[in-house]
Amino acid sequence: MEIGLIGLGRMGTGIAKSLLRSGHRLTVFNRTRARAESLQSDGANIAGSVAEACRSSVVLTMVADDAALEALVFGESGVLSSLRKDSIHVSLSTISVALSDRLSAEHAKAAQQFVAAPVFGRPEAAESAKLSVVAAGPSASVERCKPLFESMGPKLLVVGERPSMANVVKLCGNFLIATVLESLAESLTFARKSGVDPQMLLDFLTTTMFTAPVYKSYGELIVQGKHEPAGFALPLGLKDVRLVLQAAESAGVPMPIASVLRDRFITALARGNQDKDWSVIGRVAAEDAGLPSVRN
Amino acid sequence: MEIGLIGLGRMGTGIAKSLLRSGHRLTVFNRTRARAESLQSDGANIAGSVAEACRSSVVLTMVADDAALEALVFGESGVLSSLRKDSIHVSLSTISVALSDRLSAEHAKAAQQFVAAPVFGRPEAAESAKLSVVAAGPSASVERCKPLFESMGPKLLVVGERPSMANVVKLCGNFLIATVLESLAESLTFARKSGVDPQMLLDFLTTTMFTAPVYKSYGELIVQGKHEPAGFALPLGLKDVRLVLQAAESAGVPMPIASVLRDRFITALARGNQDKDWSVIGRVAAEDAGLPSVRN
Amino acid sequence: MEIGLIGLGRMGTGIAKSLLRSGHRLTVFNRTRARAESLQSDGANIAGSVAEACRSSVVLTMVADDAALEALVFGESGVLSSLRKDSIHVSLSTISVALSDRLSAEHAKAAQQFVAAPVFGRPEAAESAKLSVVAAGPSASVERCKPLFESMGPKLLVVGERPSMANVVKLCGNFLIATVLESLAESLTFARKSGVDPQMLLDFLTTTMFTAPVYKSYGELIVQGKHEPAGFALPLGLKDVRLVLQAAESAGVPMPIASVLRDRFITALARGNQDKDWSVIGRVAAEDAGLPSVRN
Amino acid sequence: MEIGLIGLGRMGTGIAKSLLRSGHRLTVFNRTRARAESLQSDGANIAGSVAEACRSSVVLTMVADDAALEALVFGESGVLSSLRKDSIHVSLSTISVALSDRLSAEHAKAAQQFVAAPVFGRPEAAESAKLSVVAAGPSASVERCKPLFESMGPKLLVVGERPSMANVVKLCGNFLIATVLESLAESLTFARKSGVDPQMLLDFLTTTMFTAPVYKSYGELIVQGKHEPAGFALPLGLKDVRLVLQAAESAGVPMPIASVLRDRFITALARGNQDKDWSVIGRVAAEDAGLPSVRN
Repeated sequence: MEIGLIGLGRMGTGIAKSLLRSGHRLTVFNRTRARAESLQSDGANIAGSVAEACRSSVVLTMVADDAALEALVFGESGVLSSLRKDSIHVSLSTISVALSDRLSAEHAKAAQQFVAAPVFGRPEAAESAKLSVVAAGPSASVERCKPLFESMGPKLLVVGERPSMANVVKLCGNFLIATVLESLAESLTFARKSGVDPQMLLDFLTTTMFTAPVYKSYGELIVQGKHEPAGFALPLGLKDVRLVLQAAESAGVPMPIASVLRDRFITALARGNQDKDWSVIGRVAAEDAGLPSVRN
Repeated sequence: MEIGLIGLGRMGTGIAKSLLRSGHRLTVFNRTRARAESLQSDGANIAGSVAEACRSSVVLTMVADDAALEALVFGESGVLSSLRKDSIHVSLSTISVALSDRLSAEHAKAAQQFVAAPVFGRPEAAESAKLSVVAAGPSASVERCKPLFESMGPKLLVVGERPSMANVVKLCGNFLIATVLESLAESLTFARKSGVDPQMLLDFLTTTMFTAPVYKSYGELIVQGKHEPAGFALPLGLKDVRLVLQAAESAGVPMPIASVLRDRFITALARGNQDKDWSVIGRVAAEDAGLPSVRN
Repeated sequence: MEIGLIGLGRMGTGIAKSLLRSGHRLTVFNRTRARAESLQSDGANIAGSVAEACRSSVVLTMVADDAALEALVFGESGVLSSLRKDSIHVSLSTISVALSDRLSAEHAKAAQQFVAAPVFGRPEAAESAKLSVVAAGPSASVERCKPLFESMGPKLLVVGERPSMANVVKLCGNFLIATVLESLAESLTFARKSGVDPQMLLDFLTTTMFTAPVYKSYGELIVQGKHEPAGFALPLGLKDVRLVLQAAESAGVPMPIASVLRDRFITALARGNQDKDWSVIGRVAAEDAGLPSVRN
Repeated sequence: MEIGLIGLGRMGTGIAKSLLRSGHRLTVFNRTRARAESLQSDGANIAGSVAEACRSSVVLTMVADDAALEALVFGESGVLSSLRKDSIHVSLSTISVALSDRLSAEHAKAAQQFVAAPVFGRPEAAESAKLSVVAAGPSASVERCKPLFESMGPKLLVVGERPSMANVVKLCGNFLIATVLESLAESLTFARKSGVDPQMLLDFLTTTMFTAPVYKSYGELIVQGKHEPAGFALPLGLKDVRLVLQAAESAGVPMPIASVLRDRFITALARGNQDKDWSVIGRVAAEDAGLPSVRN
């Protein structure tokens, strides 16, 4: 397929490589041109502007947050004004349900298509085509994009016709991961102060009832106090919890654990951990129990 | 081995069968004698009193809660006054850290041994020798009990010398399970009110990041609104959260998610769910979002 | 003074009357003209447009929320484009700290002055000049407005030079009131379920340690289950808690009680209380304890 | 009246002086005899044992907590075994609802009377007969004690026939005070980080909507960071919150603000503030927001 891709952070770059490897013709754009050039040897065309990247019939965007996507889409010579009729904008970013609904409405007004397709997985998974993709949007559009999604990873969930439903699923997933972090932080702190070796506890838990990888990987980071370099930075964690709470409030759903997470992330940031991995809340929980924090 | 076993609820009965199958000589006692008699065909001897069950050098107890175990151990002609010197009392129940510490002290005064060995698993797992056992106590005593533990299931964790450390591990495990329940309850409610099919969401989550069985089994109960018969009754769930909070408070550890769980379980009980499975908090979360609850 | 006043809801109308009574020359504007006309007999001039109301050197705005004020100020022929250089826009509304900061910046760019002056008090207090006014902004501007503020009520607090500081104070006040509601809701429910007469308890508390009027007035509403008509509607309560949480998050401050309030208000709304007074959380607390709610 | 009084801490001593001043004949007992002797010049008789203090027809007890009162009443030669038939035991301490119910039952079995009469007020108020007394118990017994209560302070609330109802009222009062502390801690921290002078904010609040003395006195301690000497020590605060949560759980009432308070007090203790006034949670809230704490 002929595809445009805008936004070459670590995730976007990884996805670009997977798509190129699968034989798609890719035109990429990034504000900092150097990142785009590094993909030339993989076969990517480099666009000189957003508008140029929008000449394909399918354009993917992968940026940091709502503000970045709003600027990219609604700004002058942005995606909305550059995309042709019937072309599809596929948003891969983790954005708010509200923005997803707005994008859906604005693209429809311009006779364009909008598909939300947030992904689960780290940059390494993006590069090795092992992402899980959650897509929602008009079914014909989602159908047209399937070859793309299949090049990004083996797992695809199509949620429904309203794009923002995919964002809801993404937010649910991130909420559950954050809850795993916090529940491990609390229980490992309780164990430490009770004289139980936290590594022993973690090994037991993850080989019996809590075999999911997320317990193992984040549990290790918490036990070892290893929160740098950040695989997923603390401010992004707070952002996602905020998006969950906003969307749940709009839907009329109280989420008390999400409230706890929010307070914890704010405290962690206020204590100077903005460059740390979001698992650093394990350290904050330990400090709240008067423990010298584990530092690696 | 020559073993006494007191307390033949569903868990105790299952464990008795596994021990007999492994060739241990078992003398059982239960307040309601009929339950004991049902084990005769499996080869169990029936004791007419607690004292009689305490003639073995190792005596297991499996009862409902702190109050039951206190009555059994400290009451007239109870375990403490009946057990011989150097004999071992192995408590399998989920009890408080404080009671475990007290049992350890009192048995020591009487020149007896105390081992805490709470287990993870349902009654079916007890009967088919598939429990996970967490043991703590004086190492010589734990060593003597190993053949027993190995007859109960394939997985044994020996935590340390202080018996109550095993109770801490058990409480951590139950806290983490309860957190899974609540986080699923919140996110599935959020999904439902956002128009996302909760079964579809659950299937996606449990085949990608949350592959641990606890997500799958409890997730199904919540999605289907199936909370009867109770695999683990709501009041027991509240009891365990209370034990976690008490022990963590004594250890000087705030556990905000446990506080959320406590409030949720109290609400669920106040709304008349005392006979339901603890997964019924999924229904309560839905009601708090104004949803008609899923009822099976 | 020569004053423009835009927004004639119950609060705005009350303030208009107080200002007229003090001898100020007032030009009023309201989207629905009838409301403006009702003030003619009190001596108000009626403006046919926002622009016309902005000819005075001081223009007050009193609208429902951020969205309404943004539309009013930044919209076509809005306050920003209509106000003369050096004129002062005084915002009386309860708005977000972020919008207050933005207004301050935008008015400064246009060489206009911005003062935030949110008020405490009900519509009756507005009409009888008994409001408490909290003002912040460039000191010369605040000084020029003092005669105005003094006509609105006997109590004036000048917080500082940055207008949004006044909004912070307003949000703190509303947070504290909401906390009083929730703490009364919880304790009166606890009392009722313990057999203690809640009216007796309330009378005791409010004549000993909790003599502040807010305990007495809201306590009565909760004890009597009287939540209609709404003195301050539930959705406004949720809005204010949201503003507190947003501003505190930006300032790096976790506010766990505010998180509790947020979840409670969302639940109250989800249960269909959107037209009730925010004291209806007393009813929700009772329902969460399995009590038939007190209904008046 | 002829009265026995056991327990001469600061509160007990103050009450003794008020009673003596009113002309009651008082026999006092304290484990540390020196404290009793200091009251001789005020006219008190000194008892050499609990039993001796129990010869009066009304015996007051004022001790630190449940454990102390249990030891005093149920121990060998304790109040229960020493008191004559029809004599009245009046418990002034802040104890659990459960213990109050148990005392009521045990005294009834012994044909003795039990009245719970916890008090509100500091030691200085006890000495100057300015306490508020909350009494509950069989009405004839409460009636007999009225002259006593009137000697302790001007304000008496008689709640009902079941003694523990008075303890419920006392716990409600302390819960509300603790909530005031926490809500001030959160909002003053929010103000500080927003550049608003906290003293100015407090002065405004306490002269407008929050005129109750508890806001003024505790607000000052928080603003000034003055948490020593402890008027009411942090561990007592945690104890009271624990009693509230236990009693509310038994009554089937979730109290989410009390859960927040509990976590906060545990954190404050874990950080080494066991000798501080419970208002020290203001400092903890500031630290959680990354502020250098105010230290006096």
